[in-house]
Order: sequence, then structure tokens, then C-alpha cells
Amino acid sequence: MIMSRIEARPDEDSVAVGSAPERLTENRAEDLTEDRAEDLTQRLTERLLTGLPAEAVLTDPDVTGSYANDMASFCEAGTPAVVVLPRTVEQVQHVMRTATDLRIPVVPQGARTGLSGAANASEGCIVLSLTKMDRILEISPVDRIAVVEPGVINATLSRAVNEHGLYYPPDPSSWEMCTIGGNIGTASGGLCCVKYGVTAEYVLGLDVVLADGRLMTTGRRTAKGVAGYDLTRLFVGSEGSLGIVVRATLALKPQPPQQLVLAAEFASGSAACDAVCRIMEGGHVPSLLELMDRTTVKAVNDMAHMGLPESTEALLLAAFDTHDPAADLAAVGALCEAAGATQVVPAEDAAESELLLQARRLSLTGLEAVKGTTMIDDVCVPRSRLAEMLEGVDRIAEKYRLTIGVVAHAGDGNTHPTVCFDASDPDESRRARESFDEIMALGLELGGTITGEHGVGVLKKEWLAREIGPVGIEMQRAVKTAFDPLGILNPGKLF
Amino acid sequence: MIMSRIEARPDEDSVAVGSAPERLTENRAEDLTEDRAEDLTQRLTERLLTGLPAEAVLTDPDVTGSYANDMASFCEAGTPAVVVLPRTVEQVQHVMRTATDLRIPVVPQGARTGLSGAANASEGCIVLSLTKMDRILEISPVDRIAVVEPGVINATLSRAVNEHGLYYPPDPSSWEMCTIGGNIGTASGGLCCVKYGVTAEYVLGLDVVLADGRLMTTGRRTAKGVAGYDLTRLFVGSEGSLGIVVRATLALKPQPPQQLVLAAEFASGSAACDAVCRIMEGGHVPSLLELMDRTTVKAVNDMAHMGLPESTEALLLAAFDTHDPAADLAAVGALCEAAGATQVVPAEDAAESELLLQARRLSLTGLEAVKGTTMIDDVCVPRSRLAEMLEGVDRIAEKYRLTIGVVAHAGDGNTHPTVCFDASDPDESRRARESFDEIMALGLELGGTITGEHGVGVLKKEWLAREIGPVGIEMQRAVKTAFDPLGILNPGKLF
Repeated sequence: MIMSRIEARPDEDSVAVGSAPERLTENRAEDLTEDRAEDLTQRLTERLLTGLPAEAVLTDPDVTGSYANDMASFCEAGTPAVVVLPRTVEQVQHVMRTATDLRIPVVPQGARTGLSGAANASEGCIVLSLTKMDRILEISPVDRIAVVEPGVINATLSRAVNEHGLYYPPDPSSWEMCTIGGNIGTASGGLCCVKYGVTAEYVLGLDVVLADGRLMTTGRRTAKGVAGYDLTRLFVGSEGSLGIVVRATLALKPQPPQQLVLAAEFASGSAACDAVCRIMEGGHVPSLLELMDRTTVKAVNDMAHMGLPESTEALLLAAFDTHDPAADLAAVGALCEAAGATQVVPAEDAAESELLLQARRLSLTGLEAVKGTTMIDDVCVPRSRLAEMLEGVDRIAEKYRLTIGVVAHAGDGNTHPTVCFDASDPDESRRARESFDEIMALGLELGGTITGEHGVGVLKKEWLAREIGPVGIEMQRAVKTAFDPLGILNPGKLF
Repeated sequence: MIMSRIEARPDEDSVAVGSAPERLTENRAEDLTEDRAEDLTQRLTERLLTGLPAEAVLTDPDVTGSYANDMASFCEAGTPAVVVLPRTVEQVQHVMRTATDLRIPVVPQGARTGLSGAANASEGCIVLSLTKMDRILEISPVDRIAVVEPGVINATLSRAVNEHGLYYPPDPSSWEMCTIGGNIGTASGGLCCVKYGVTAEYVLGLDVVLADGRLMTTGRRTAKGVAGYDLTRLFVGSEGSLGIVVRATLALKPQPPQQLVLAAEFASGSAACDAVCRIMEGGHVPSLLELMDRTTVKAVNDMAHMGLPESTEALLLAAFDTHDPAADLAAVGALCEAAGATQVVPAEDAAESELLLQARRLSLTGLEAVKGTTMIDDVCVPRSRLAEMLEGVDRIAEKYRLTIGVVAHAGDGNTHPTVCFDASDPDESRRARESFDEIMALGLELGGTITGEHGVGVLKKEWLAREIGPVGIEMQRAVKTAFDPLGILNPGKLF
């Protein structure tokens, strides 16, 4: 393995962000020979072991190799030099001080359920896995907050706060596996967002270990607070490129009543989108408003034999967690019929509702089974443009002769057109990537964004530049440099 | 008037944030003589007039002097060299290019209703008033967004969206006067926050003119989006120190039913705070939960003859804008009684509710009438510590022999202990400032923040440092430098 050390550019070196820790004065070289790389790995390991127990430092290539990538396995990934599994803030500080001194890139990881390669290893990096820092430190029903370490699993937190009559809304599909730290890194969404918003809206304050190992506290544990720039929010969605989140204070909601779900079938995607617009324009506040197209419905049936109606072109699921959800569903059902729904079936109870949600949650797994591999787009458009988005994806699927299933958080305009392809077929793989990109171009054309909730990572770097333009990219880079002048934190991600 | 030009420090000059516009190569001096200052003002005015109509450039000292400060009139303020009132984005860009070239500080202003001196002029600055950019550009009921210029009055927007069945929640007390741009600059709160949150949660995207005149677009017009760092949120609450907001895309909610208010009287502040905790712990979601202490109640009665009950030590107002507010008020009323309320009076209709809210809204004006001048603290504590906060303020009032009325957004733990004093009495003024500071110290001790919604400005600079610590301040400065390497944007505010 050839290690690449981070080479700080002179202008980065000169940025004043405080007294840098002791810096090595060795000669730098663009490429290190294999011998020198091994030497550096050895020194890195030795340095790490001065502040970490042996079981927290993994160097066996068979083991470290398994930390190379997140769920976007088709994105480029390097081989980690070492994987560290700290259990304390001090240990994380030791890792970052070591990385700064030796100029080694650090790639923070949670459960690696991300879909954009943001947690993929850089060649010769330290993988900093936060999974062992998994304690829930506090739950306060009066203050409606939880204080957690980054490795806490989303579902674990959700269930723990439920026991106090509280609710932590963000619910990405991977909620049984993914960590709160990862959710913060990617500003994760989920099914609940149409009513409850994304992760960002639940992060009140953070403890962050900076690139040079110093600890910074941002934000607050109060309901409100405007003391200085909102650095908390800056870290949410920063994909581990600004600092290492080691503690988070999260806002909680009171637990709402159990939601009740309605399913509506439509003869076309645009009729379903019309229903979505009528529902939102009508002032309704559903707790969920999801769309599955015919391809997705069939894929779920094929995999899980759910008995979903395959004759429909688009299946819309709406839910309410209000005190009288049946009344809300009746009103929304009428709007669906006005928009041309061929059938409207409200769930009779929680069990039926759960079954419908389960079908929705199986969508991506179902689509993956179609051809073995998927590329999942994450384009969010203003919901008034949702019908155009769906029509465009149909055209693109036809143009590239591909199966593209669409599952969408329709209420948010957040679509996941999922390109199904056989990764062993180079031509199909090429067409998959081209269609994937064309879908993002369409999203931008419709006034949308290339990523509603999955992040940029490695997968959409060039698209971020297209979305935010040269001035935007320049200012994003300036912020990055302010926090990480040596560029050691998750390099090569975002831009 | 002696003008001070911004003297860029060498290390700031070297920060790479893109090609700086043409820079003057003149000699710099720490202080300019009066002659040179007049010369510079003349050149500044001439340069401004090359891109602005004459009526948009005010130089008459009698006029410009009236733009010297916001509502925190007791904070230091300089004399503006010139006041500009642009009407277009291009005009704002021209102002910033001019300011960069001549190294003149720029102080952005809205309606100057701020309470921390964040809009106070620097000596010899350009005051950039955004009040003429006051168009509502778009309201979309389907996408639930509004696109506005920064000078739109909060109440104007609120009423305009109401006509479409929509609701823009943030409602600072000054909502009939204050601008959306000012609200964004200070991340304003209001009475609605306990249910609907602060301004920050309603800003989806911004057009910002940077210090050097370039235009940057941040964020999105979609419900969700995570493309790159959240620069939108970074600008919210940045008090005009990072760039000039010239357009904002705001999220809207569907208009809720009319809220119904309940008033509960308590024999002590701590009993009222106990009621607040029971209400929030009980999972209720009031649309308003406000507290007025005896001093405040009496001040409002004295001024407006409202007939509020003066025998009470603390008056709690709770409201619900749900579909069955009477039922919610009954439940909350029972919790108030359990906490020891001496009387619980639900409003019978919207008119009675409005009267109670009016009393609350008159609180600060009422307290101002007590002694002629007030210093309004804005300490927010975890609501579990609210009772301790109130008790502490009582002790501080006694210690400094001052009248301090407390009005609080109790549901958020956001208190406004308001120090009443006679500004012509130096000893009382000194005691007022000391008590004001001691209240912030108490807030920090209780795990709170020095500012829940009013911002830092000039008034609380040293307290920001105490709250966020040296590493926090250093990183805040690094962010500032990334956006404004010459330090021309609202210098001397925040830190």
C-alpha cells in the first residue's frame, strides 16, 4: 500500500486559526515509497497506541479493509492504514493530534449506511469509527432534550425516548443500524420529514474535536439561543470534513398519537402528484406522504409478496398522527379522488398501517433485487414540479433502456429515482451512471437540489459545483480551510 | 468627524478567498486627519453616485445622524459618513465594491428595532439601509414558500401570506415595524416560538452580496436539501457581519385555527414555573406560554389601564391553536391548579384572547415607563431551571436596589429581566449595568445562554466570549475572516 501524506499548500499553512500543534519538519514528497509508507504506518500506530488501548487500534489489513466504504460501494475508496475505535473524547483528541502531527487524513465513520461515499476511506487514512462511543447520557422530559454520544443507533435513541413519552423524529430507512453521528454528518431525513423536518432541526448543540485535537462546544441546551454564528448547524451535513462530533444535544418532541395510513392508487404519476399538491395546498399536515411507482410496487411484491396492487401506476401513502387521524384521512382521501385516484383505501388500524409502511420501507431493497445493483438518486424539487420530475425520469429510463424505479417522499418533493443495473455489464453500468447524472440535471432544471437527504460524498462532487456555482464553492472551501487548514479531515469529499 | 479606514492586518490579507477586486495602493495611516477624512468622504460619495441615484445617497449630517443607532440607544455608536438606500441587488453590489475598494466599514440596517446595538453605526461608515428593497416577490401555497426582499416588514409579509391561507410564524414584539432582513440578521424570535421556533427555522435560501460585491446564492427553495455546508443558516443571526442579505426564500406553514388563551395567577414565580414544567412534561404543545411578574403586570396596568390582577406574583398565559383549544386549555388549566394557581381564567373567545395578548405585548413599553429607560436582558435557560432564574433575578434586584420586571417566553425558558433605571442618574445607571451583567452570569451558571433571541451586537460582546470560550471565539473569527477578510462588514459587533 502506498500512503499519501497530506501536503499542506503554502497558502493554507499561512491561515491563522490559532497555534498549530507541534509540526513535523521532515521533508515532504509527493509520493512516498512503499518502505517509507510502512515506516510511517508503523510510527502512526505507535503514536496512536500512546493514547489508545491496543484493542482500539486495528491494523490487520483483512480487518481494516472491511472499513473501506459505506453503502455506495461503487464509489472510489482507498485502503485505510489503520482503524481506530475510541471510547472517550480524550481518545478522539489524541487521534486528531496524532493525525495533525503526522499529516495523515482522517475519515470519520458511523455505521457506514451512507449512500454517497462520504464515509469511504482515503488511501492510507486513519478511519475514525465512532461506533464505540454509544452512550445515551441524558434524557430530560421537561427540557425535551437528549444528550448522546455519536455512536448511538438511531433506533436505540428513538426507543429510549419513547419510554419517556418523547419522540425523536428523524427516521432514515437505515434507522435500525445508522448512528446519530452519521445522521448529523449527512443531515439525514426520512419518512417523517414532511411534518417533522430533518436531523438538522433537532441538533441544538455539539461537542466537536477540531482537526488539531482541540475541543469546541457549539450551541446550547436551551430551546432558543443566538449567541454568535450558528456553528452547530454548520457541522450538520458537513460529512465529517470540519471536525469530529463527539457529543450532541438533541431536541425532542412529545410522542404523537399512533399514525394511521391511507393508500391511494393512481392511473398516472402526474395524477398522484396532483393529489400531493392538492393536499399541501389544502393546508393539511400529514405525518407522511410517500409515493411508489409501478416498478417499485412490483419490485416489493416480487421480493416480499406483499400483495400490493400492481395495476396502479403510482401508489400514494398518506398518514396522520393527529388526535382524529380518520377525519384527516377522509379529507385527504377526497382530495385524492378529486385528483383522479382509482382507489382509496384507508387503513383500519395500526397493524394495517404498519404493513403499508413496511412495503414502503422495503422499496430500495426490492429495487436492488431487480438487477443486483442500484444507483439511488436523491433529487428534491419544489413539490409543484414533482409531476414534471416523474415524467422526466420516465423519459430518461426510456432513453437509456434502463429500469428506474421511483420512490419519493412526495410531500417534500424529495424523489429517489433508483437506477437498477447489472454492475458486471460495463455498457449498462455506463448507461446507469449517465442516467443518474441526467436525473440530477433535470432536478436542477426544475429548481431543485441534487441531494435532499443523502449528501454529496464522493458521488456528487461535480454536481455540487453545478448546483451552487463557483462563488458558492469558493466560500464553502474558505469555510473548510478555516476549520481544517491542513486538509486532513475527510479529504476529497464534497468538493 | 474623523474617519477611520479599515486597516487590514497582513495575515488577513493573505487569506485566499478569491480574487480581490481592485485595491487601492495608497498609503495607510492609523488616523486620518480631518482634511483627509473629508476628502475621503467626498471620494466615497462620488464613487457611490456612479452606481446609485442621487436620492439613494444621503450625506446631510442631520439626516445621517438619525441612522446612528438601533433601539439599544445606550450602546456606543459612531457617526455614519453616508447613508445609502439601494433598491436593487446591483446597487448593493456597487456599494460593497466601493466599500471594499476604499476600505470603508459598512453597517447594514433594517428598521433598527434591534435591542443589542448590532445595527449601530461605526464612525465614518456607510450605513446600508435595506428598507427600500421591500418587495414580496412570490408566495406559493403549493410549495409553502415566500420569496422576499430584505426590507419587507414582518407584519406586511404575515398579512400577505394569511390571504393565501398561509402563516409566517416568527413574530417579534416589533413585528409591525421590523424587517425580514433584520429578523434574519438577528435570528429573531417572538411569542410563537414555543410551538413554531425562531426565524432560523423558516429561512430556506438566501441571495447574499459578499464583502467584495460578488453575489452568492445559498440554500434552496425545496422542502429539504443538504448540498454542501449550510451557509444559509450561518448567515441567519450573523448580524450583518458576513454579507448583505438581498433576497430570502422563506418556508411557510398552513394557517392554524385562531388561538385561545388562558390566564393563570400564581402566588409565587416558582409556582408558575412549576406549572410550565408540568405543561411541557405532560406533552402539551401550546402555541404560546408566557409569564409576566407582578412588576410587569403593574407597569402594564399603570400605562394602559388593562385591569390585570395586581395581587398575583406571576401571571401565566397559555394558548392553543389546535382544533379543540378549549379541551387543551382545560387540561393545562388543571395542571396550573395542581401547581398551585390561585385562579385560572380561560378566555371565552378570540376577543378576550386578543386582550390578554395585548397586555403581554405592552410589557416592555410598560416597564420602560417606570423609570424612563430599560436594559432588557434576554437570557434563555433550560426550562427546568426557570424557577431558579426568577429567584436569582429577585435577589439581584434587591442587591442593586433596582426595579427589575420579568417578562418571559416561559415555555422556551427565555426570560427578559428588564432593568428599569433613570439614565440621568449615574449611580443608578452603573447599578443597572452591573445587575444586567449579573443576570447574564446567572443564566450561564444555570446552563443557559446570554441571548435567546435579541443577539449580541455591541451590548453583549464580552459575554459572548464568556459563553462560548476561547476556542469558540477563535473559530467564529476564522469564519468571519473567511467571508470578510478586510473586516469591513459591521466591524466591532459580536466579538
